[in-house]
Amino acid sequence: MKAEIITIGDEILIGQIVDTNSAWMAEQLNLNGIEVYQVSSVHDDHKHILQALADAQQRADLVLITGGLGPTKDDITKKCLCEYFNCGMHTHQPSLQAITERLEKRGIALNQLNRDQALVPDSCTVLPNKNGTAPGMWFEKQDTIFVSMPGVPYEMTGIMEDEVFPRLRKSGKLKSIYHQTILVYGIGESTLSEMLENWENALPPFIKLAYLPNQLMVRLRLSAYGTNSDELKQTVDQQIGKLQELIPDHICGYNGDTLSEITGKLLTKASAMVAVAESCTGGNIAHLYTEVPGSSSYFKGGVVAYSNDVKMALLNVKAATLDAHGAVSQQTALEMVAGVKQALGSDYGIATTGIAGPDGGTSDKPVGTVWIAVSGKHTTRVECFRFHHNRSRNIERASQTALNMLRQLLLTEINEAAVRTK
Amino acid sequence: MKAEIITIGDEILIGQIVDTNSAWMAEQLNLNGIEVYQVSSVHDDHKHILQALADAQQRADLVLITGGLGPTKDDITKKCLCEYFNCGMHTHQPSLQAITERLEKRGIALNQLNRDQALVPDSCTVLPNKNGTAPGMWFEKQDTIFVSMPGVPYEMTGIMEDEVFPRLRKSGKLKSIYHQTILVYGIGESTLSEMLENWENALPPFIKLAYLPNQLMVRLRLSAYGTNSDELKQTVDQQIGKLQELIPDHICGYNGDTLSEITGKLLTKASAMVAVAESCTGGNIAHLYTEVPGSSSYFKGGVVAYSNDVKMALLNVKAATLDAHGAVSQQTALEMVAGVKQALGSDYGIATTGIAGPDGGTSDKPVGTVWIAVSGKHTTRVECFRFHHNRSRNIERASQTALNMLRQLLLTEINEAAVRTK
Repeated sequence: MKAEIITIGDEILIGQIVDTNSAWMAEQLNLNGIEVYQVSSVHDDHKHILQALADAQQRADLVLITGGLGPTKDDITKKCLCEYFNCGMHTHQPSLQAITERLEKRGIALNQLNRDQALVPDSCTVLPNKNGTAPGMWFEKQDTIFVSMPGVPYEMTGIMEDEVFPRLRKSGKLKSIYHQTILVYGIGESTLSEMLENWENALPPFIKLAYLPNQLMVRLRLSAYGTNSDELKQTVDQQIGKLQELIPDHICGYNGDTLSEITGKLLTKASAMVAVAESCTGGNIAHLYTEVPGSSSYFKGGVVAYSNDVKMALLNVKAATLDAHGAVSQQTALEMVAGVKQALGSDYGIATTGIAGPDGGTSDKPVGTVWIAVSGKHTTRVECFRFHHNRSRNIERASQTALNMLRQLLLTEINEAAVRTK
Repeated sequence: MKAEIITIGDEILIGQIVDTNSAWMAEQLNLNGIEVYQVSSVHDDHKHILQALADAQQRADLVLITGGLGPTKDDITKKCLCEYFNCGMHTHQPSLQAITERLEKRGIALNQLNRDQALVPDSCTVLPNKNGTAPGMWFEKQDTIFVSMPGVPYEMTGIMEDEVFPRLRKSGKLKSIYHQTILVYGIGESTLSEMLENWENALPPFIKLAYLPNQLMVRLRLSAYGTNSDELKQTVDQQIGKLQELIPDHICGYNGDTLSEITGKLLTKASAMVAVAESCTGGNIAHLYTEVPGSSSYFKGGVVAYSNDVKMALLNVKAATLDAHGAVSQQTALEMVAGVKQALGSDYGIATTGIAGPDGGTSDKPVGTVWIAVSGKHTTRVECFRFHHNRSRNIERASQTALNMLRQLLLTEINEAAVRTK
């Protein structure tokens, strides 16, 4: 089964929002064995929308449309759908009732614009929207299914999960796809590609390999297409086994694993807690930990020591250290990591201090200079990095690098502990 | 001038990455007066890429293509471009030299895959890529310009800024567009639309209005299209002036302003510093502050008090309070905000404590229950919210709500101070 995604609305085309909806839908469709052929973002423009619907119908069995269902003038999707499916509109009573109840709960009186949200094209099946006022709509035309949904992310995801996927599963048309992504740290794309050449050439023809490099690592994605999902899974997992033998030290995780999750698992294995002392990363490392459910079992907390006062008062950094070496120094990073372990009573600690930019750099310590310290049960490591990028990339890079330093330290200490107990 | 964006690669279509490149390009094109007609994401597939190029050529004067220029097997963009422009490939010596120097600096030996990155289609003009090994390429065919760039975000932005925009400006074809977005807090979309009906109907025909609601506010975007950029700016600014008279208390900012920036400006106005005590938001509020350049002049730092130990040790929350009322309570939030102001020596404080989920909820305090306290020079406010969403949305919603509470408190205290000095 092939799908296309059409997002309607000027927000994406003028760059005001990033299209996270399509990423979510594409991921979910693939996980459900539906290949996404194209994603198109088109204007709130009558002719353009009709053209996009016609183009998609030629190529796809399923067309998911988001956006343009709001109550205001610039929302024209429903009118276009009526024209495309050659029908009129009527008020859908259950939707009108749901809208009325929804607004009543919030103490808002129903106006004509709210009432118009219950108007639906005659030829659609209404898909209830439990998270908002605009209902979803399901159409069928010459073997192609069209689904129109609001562009508000949690309204769209609700309709997809509650209505669209259950209906597709019932239809029995779904094909199998199996993806696995291997996260490889410490080898560049070209070198890795040479190292894996024989393995890659020997992959079965129904498995596709993609290299997805980013700043910190290369992700290798294996995609298998077929009909027997058990067989696909087994073959891909066998290939991953071979890869583990080829580059054992460089695989740091799989699929959507993040370094906060990977270190979280290692901390759990070591029955240890971590705390963070952040200057230049400004709370980002704490945020990366705490966005993971259950992180309270290994993440104790942190101090965002954005001013020197705070470094001294809460992390016990000495005034003499700051005077002699400055806030961005090896000595300060070491005192910060010792201080945060002490103050928060944790087994492991991370400390960052640096110049995120765009201002504050000197010839000696240019923008992008970051000292990172990690400390464990027996070992403390400290290193200086020069990232040279813009502020947000420096923050992200410093955060990821710090987490990776902790990962390496944890691996060392866990292995040492294993050797000692042997 | 009309543009289209084509992104090539499976990553977007399987939902592995979010397409931030297109958002950036669309924003920059619009700021430069180029309307974006469509954004399409297509597979690493030969036939599909050629079709997308042909479709875009029919509709646009400028086609920006990203992705598929890496050194590995799955990168087929260059082959497709050669076929589309009916030409062969040759090694571009300056690119080969740049690649060699780049790798030498990093101590990496040149291999065949690296060398192949200097191969370019015969009919293109090469656009140097200072941030990576794959050069950009500029083609012209029957009045349409095609530009192919790598998909790595900072490589693409470098080529756009250094090469593409300067060349387009030289061509003199650019039309004027002027956008302004007004951030409206505290009125729902339907109510706002009724309040603004007369103003909206009286807008000049060359100004387009869009309502862009999100969870916390409605953004109103005015877009003016024409030839005289001074006139467009003047007319839009006049309309914003009228809007300021219609809903004076609800406009909290403009364009990309964030609540951390808005409160940062108010803190600067009040010559005050803020500190944050975060439990359920886990460092996210500190991160929102510190990602803004220059925030060290009003953001002092914070404590991520993820465990009760940390709340007691660093924020002076009493054990008796935690025992009697629990960590998620009005009393704990109040002690946290007082504690963080005291410990960090700040004028203003924010504290959050809640249940982000998915676990940890009770019938009494379900997932999404969050207590937020803000405290200033004279006043402390505390409020309980029930967000009922998933973890990441609860964190984001709690962070934004806390910042908005601080904004309101700052406005009150700044106004009071102004009254006192009169």
